[in-house]
Amino acid sequence: MMKILVINPNTTAEMTREIDKAAKRYAHDTTQIETLSPEWGPRSIEGHLEETLSAHATVEVVAANRDAYDAFVIACYGDPGLFAAREVTAAPVLGIAEASMLMACTVAHRFSVVTVIPRIVPMLGDLVRAYGLETRCASVRATNLSVLDIERDPSRAADEILKVSRRAIEEDGAEAITLGCAGMGPLDKKIQEGLDGVPVIDGVAAAVKMAEALHGYGVRTSKVGAFMDPEPKELVGVKDVLQMVAGG
Amino acid sequence: MMKILVINPNTTAEMTREIDKAAKRYAHDTTQIETLSPEWGPRSIEGHLEETLSAHATVEVVAANRDAYDAFVIACYGDPGLFAAREVTAAPVLGIAEASMLMACTVAHRFSVVTVIPRIVPMLGDLVRAYGLETRCASVRATNLSVLDIERDPSRAADEILKVSRRAIEEDGAEAITLGCAGMGPLDKKIQEGLDGVPVIDGVAAAVKMAEALHGYGVRTSKVGAFMDPEPKELVGVKDVLQMVAGG
Amino acid sequence: MMKILVINPNTTAEMTREIDKAAKRYAHDTTQIETLSPEWGPRSIEGHLEETLSAHATVEVVAANRDAYDAFVIACYGDPGLFAAREVTAAPVLGIAEASMLMACTVAHRFSVVTVIPRIVPMLGDLVRAYGLETRCASVRATNLSVLDIERDPSRAADEILKVSRRAIEEDGAEAITLGCAGMGPLDKKIQEGLDGVPVIDGVAAAVKMAEALHGYGVRTSKVGAFMDPEPKELVGVKDVLQMVAGG
Amino acid sequence: MMKILVINPNTTAEMTREIDKAAKRYAHDTTQIETLSPEWGPRSIEGHLEETLSAHATVEVVAANRDAYDAFVIACYGDPGLFAAREVTAAPVLGIAEASMLMACTVAHRFSVVTVIPRIVPMLGDLVRAYGLETRCASVRATNLSVLDIERDPSRAADEILKVSRRAIEEDGAEAITLGCAGMGPLDKKIQEGLDGVPVIDGVAAAVKMAEALHGYGVRTSKVGAFMDPEPKELVGVKDVLQMVAGG
Amino acid sequence: MMKILVINPNTTAEMTREIDKAAKRYAHDTTQIETLSPEWGPRSIEGHLEETLSAHATVEVVAANRDAYDAFVIACYGDPGLFAAREVTAAPVLGIAEASMLMACTVAHRFSVVTVIPRIVPMLGDLVRAYGLETRCASVRATNLSVLDIERDPSRAADEILKVSRRAIEEDGAEAITLGCAGMGPLDKKIQEGLDGVPVIDGVAAAVKMAEALHGYGVRTSKVGAFMDPEPKELVGVKDVLQMVAGG
Amino acid sequence: MMKILVINPNTTAEMTREIDKAAKRYAHDTTQIETLSPEWGPRSIEGHLEETLSAHATVEVVAANRDAYDAFVIACYGDPGLFAAREVTAAPVLGIAEASMLMACTVAHRFSVVTVIPRIVPMLGDLVRAYGLETRCASVRATNLSVLDIERDPSRAADEILKVSRRAIEEDGAEAITLGCAGMGPLDKKIQEGLDGVPVIDGVAAAVKMAEALHGYGVRTSKVGAFMDPEPKELVGVKDVLQMVAGG
Repeated sequence: MMKILVINPNTTAEMTREIDKAAKRYAHDTTQIETLSPEWGPRSIEGHLEETLSAHATVEVVAANRDAYDAFVIACYGDPGLFAAREVTAAPVLGIAEASMLMACTVAHRFSVVTVIPRIVPMLGDLVRAYGLETRCASVRATNLSVLDIERDPSRAADEILKVSRRAIEEDGAEAITLGCAGMGPLDKKIQEGLDGVPVIDGVAAAVKMAEALHGYGVRTSKVGAFMDPEPKELVGVKDVLQMVAGG
Repeated sequence: MMKILVINPNTTAEMTREIDKAAKRYAHDTTQIETLSPEWGPRSIEGHLEETLSAHATVEVVAANRDAYDAFVIACYGDPGLFAAREVTAAPVLGIAEASMLMACTVAHRFSVVTVIPRIVPMLGDLVRAYGLETRCASVRATNLSVLDIERDPSRAADEILKVSRRAIEEDGAEAITLGCAGMGPLDKKIQEGLDGVPVIDGVAAAVKMAEALHGYGVRTSKVGAFMDPEPKELVGVKDVLQMVAGG
Repeated sequence: MMKILVINPNTTAEMTREIDKAAKRYAHDTTQIETLSPEWGPRSIEGHLEETLSAHATVEVVAANRDAYDAFVIACYGDPGLFAAREVTAAPVLGIAEASMLMACTVAHRFSVVTVIPRIVPMLGDLVRAYGLETRCASVRATNLSVLDIERDPSRAADEILKVSRRAIEEDGAEAITLGCAGMGPLDKKIQEGLDGVPVIDGVAAAVKMAEALHGYGVRTSKVGAFMDPEPKELVGVKDVLQMVAGG
Repeated sequence: MMKILVINPNTTAEMTREIDKAAKRYAHDTTQIETLSPEWGPRSIEGHLEETLSAHATVEVVAANRDAYDAFVIACYGDPGLFAAREVTAAPVLGIAEASMLMACTVAHRFSVVTVIPRIVPMLGDLVRAYGLETRCASVRATNLSVLDIERDPSRAADEILKVSRRAIEEDGAEAITLGCAGMGPLDKKIQEGLDGVPVIDGVAAAVKMAEALHGYGVRTSKVGAFMDPEPKELVGVKDVLQMVAGG
Repeated sequence: MMKILVINPNTTAEMTREIDKAAKRYAHDTTQIETLSPEWGPRSIEGHLEETLSAHATVEVVAANRDAYDAFVIACYGDPGLFAAREVTAAPVLGIAEASMLMACTVAHRFSVVTVIPRIVPMLGDLVRAYGLETRCASVRATNLSVLDIERDPSRAADEILKVSRRAIEEDGAEAITLGCAGMGPLDKKIQEGLDGVPVIDGVAAAVKMAEALHGYGVRTSKVGAFMDPEPKELVGVKDVLQMVAGG
Repeated sequence: MMKILVINPNTTAEMTREIDKAAKRYAHDTTQIETLSPEWGPRSIEGHLEETLSAHATVEVVAANRDAYDAFVIACYGDPGLFAAREVTAAPVLGIAEASMLMACTVAHRFSVVTVIPRIVPMLGDLVRAYGLETRCASVRATNLSVLDIERDPSRAADEILKVSRRAIEEDGAEAITLGCAGMGPLDKKIQEGLDGVPVIDGVAAAVKMAEALHGYGVRTSKVGAFMDPEPKELVGVKDVLQMVAGG
């Protein structure tokens, strides 16, 4: 029996519900999943400003729940607040971008990320590079979909993602597709079918399965180096849950 | 219920038994594990010649069993035959080097591999680079242990691995240790304790958990690009199990 | 006549005053500098949690002042909120880490960053890599100084920074030193003298001079790609100054 | 009050005059600029042979004037003789390629260089790599313009540069353009306007502003490592100004 | 007088004869060449499985002949068994991929590999990376030719290779072409002529000339590090020639 | 029968004689070698200024002799003027640094360069990177020898090179040594013996053997891209031999 908290870093409740469903689809019987979103922050995350805000909001949620869960999943493809969250708890924290990319590495020589609107492409390129996976990533390709478009018309979204995925396979040498937005997750198997079985990986599912794997093996976040507990210090005007982790 | 075949690519029966135990330690209740080794090949794998031989032997074992298992684990830290095995079956095939490194990436900024004798270091460096993880790998460090030394005197081995791991942490900035030989696996938690909780990852355990994750989510090896089924052709003088996968 | 807003992303007022002085030291006569810090956030920034919080706080300050200044300087060596700030205004925004590294590239083949406590080293390594400067950076070296130690005892701090800088020059091949904490800035020329003239670069001074250069040439942040204006959308529970930039 | 010597490394007098004008456009009131070209060398620089010759000629000019200026600018986009010039004086020496690329890094995620005829592309690719900026450079794109074509018909040149710049933005993800030939400099703002404000950076202007920045902060070329003063030795048959710097 | 053993790693006798002819074309008068293929293994090599098998078969041939030749050439563009062969003998062992790429580096800024069917492309990309030549390789481009197609219809093959080579030159910036299959070797000069003299390099010829160069200078494979003699150990069920090199 | 012109880029006649002897040691019977040095330029090359001057002088020598030789060797470990020389003739031009590094790649996993005084280290590091060989180069290590010291006291030089080479092998993982100065060439076999057979490669010998290999196979410098013939243009005040190649 393990408990995973999935956090939707944006404040769109419909999306939180969809992510919750996606997270539960492939979870093990003995895994209990809850999905929350912060009470504040952007309706969707499509740029650095929104990423910055939601990173703060997300780490608050992790801190507030850090004793109640065995693992955490950050369900936005920018992985907002991932490294800060790893300071705040020793339980595994998975970002859906990182989890989907690492999983893709086990079944494909190179993967492409298919994501929302073009402005996201440089951000995701930076993320690929931050994770050191640039030689495994064939491309990051945008669609013309906004995050909330996907929710509104999943069928059009699937068509568009399928079209762009085909180009990634044919022109960039992608052998697997990771879906570069949490909202795309529920479409994974449908798109995979449209691609004649080329693996299509939803980060939410990937992160839940990786969280189960880490928990099952008893592996927790390293507390030497980058993810040490925060230094004790005053965090002026910051919520108590965060001040508490900083030892205040 | 899933079935994993773990393959010890060398021909030392004691080691096969140890690997079998290590593989079962953290497997889920509903996972059934069997462990085999090829009937021919080197007693241990500590160089390119032995790697080349065991790659052939390993892929034979995968081919012979390809319809009977849901996933395969290659339990030698050189991942011999990994890419060929991925051609031979669409079921996930995990190498213990790759699995341990990818898992380490989720809990540590950078990891070090601690392995056997020094001649292995360039081979593992090449492997890290082949997987595109060179910016995540703090170092590959040798001990003075041969593969079979570990079996013979696990207590001395643990001391030596511990000592070298400490240097990797202090001098190279490692935040997690992956154990660079299947034989070191059973020592994981003991060494982790000696390192005050710095994550120590056995590739066999990591690969089993990743195999469960991939199977649980229904992700299989991509059949476009690098891991397509073999071209149909005659394989002169090669065992029937391999000729069969080449469609002969 | 140009106006630069320097932001100290932490909430230690003494440090804001020191940064203000440092920023003014080398500014041109016709440059007017003001220095602010956010009203909330950590007392100092020495980890990902604090960086995440101060990124939010910093971008609020930029947004609130975006029509009143010709350029902005973020005066913490993690450059918190830099990319978000570049979305929020088209005026140049300089991070002191980026500015000091780029300036070092014009006078040295390779530079080393000498910074505060060891836990910062992986963060700064990531920053160097995010800016694509890994081949120009000889090393990131820690001292045993916390951010606030420097303020308390600048003389001891200078000695320690000097000692570590010498090792960077002798052992790592550094040809210039960038001071990896805004608090170290006032010590630049003293340390440079101790190093027999090897260039020692304070990011605050570097960023001010780069801001003057950009303004003088009329170069502003690109609004195609990574730093486009934020998408118009609701930012629930976020300060009005940010909602305004998101077009709300 | 500072004095900058701008050197046009080729021997086309019209181009020297244009560069002089470009250099003065954005210089500070208190900066005094003079522009010279060597008495010998190629009429324009469009290959390795010409680069080799003009590197020699350029470093002669720097040596002959080393006590009379506070900074030097080498105004050809191959930066000929840059590293040698940094040995010959401790005053800052800026190459226009390096300066424009570093400046672009502060306002754009990635930049493209738009340059003259195609044979220059590999040379500039090498330069980008020599400066360690390959992850920041979206592309180097050629036009069909020779160096001297630009002078002859600036209007056609602007059209051509504009067309190629648009492709760099749309196809390569460039967010800023650096003009890959000193002769293109005067067209910067016109092209920027044609690109709806995407930053277009002339290396001559960028180098002058960076020289002012370095001088203003009192930062000079490092004399440990790559740019140490030349070893004292006989330079047979070389002009006295160079023999003098080698201590003869 | 030197003796080179050229090994065709596949079991197609016609191809062995062609390779023998290709190897002798440019050999020095005083070089004696013999060409063999293993008695077992795939008819052609177009994937990881076949590469794995032929690596084993190839190293057997090297071991069986290690005292009788001054150098060895592995004549398949995947360089199967290259590193293992270097353990088995101290005489130089050249792979045709490596030799052709290194030779191309001396006459071209960047080269492209033009090879057989598309599935080979990721394998050759990995090889380029394993040799550390990714910045020198403009592209790996596939044709629609299988290995055995080339033998069957060399004229059609030449046309196809020519067409693809032209695209490599025009679109990827290749300045030389290496022929990515031993079977393409005899077409080298014809294709070079079709490319107006752009260097076209056959790996067999390149490897023979490099073997002569190494032998002429008396340079042999390093026996510290990666290519040390195999550790003495039992190789169960492996041919005696290999057991002998492992000291058995 | 082939004719190679070896150029000593410095003006020390004793060194020219030594290089001539070194070049002839391993040349084939049918290879005719002549060695020249320019009439002007530095007595030795130990920095960017001297490299710049000797690049010019060297390319003059190549141009003056371009119809009389089948290949050219530039015998200084900075490879001064290499790329310009490749524009001036289509005959192969080998730099001794490049040739020694490429040769080392065929017998060693990684090589170290052992060179003269420390100031050379960043220059050679840049060269390794310019050739794209940074993953194959274990280190560049300096001795305390100047170029001319080696001539004066070869025995002391050999001891010093041996000592530094041992450190490269033991501490950096070098498996071969390239001698980072033409003057060190004659010591190659003596040092190799002192290193128990670890390959020690003199660039002069390596370049001569590579030149023979290229000539034997009929491979010449590519004339598309980086090494095209110079554009026809006036080279003011430059020797006629160079003006002639520029078509004057």
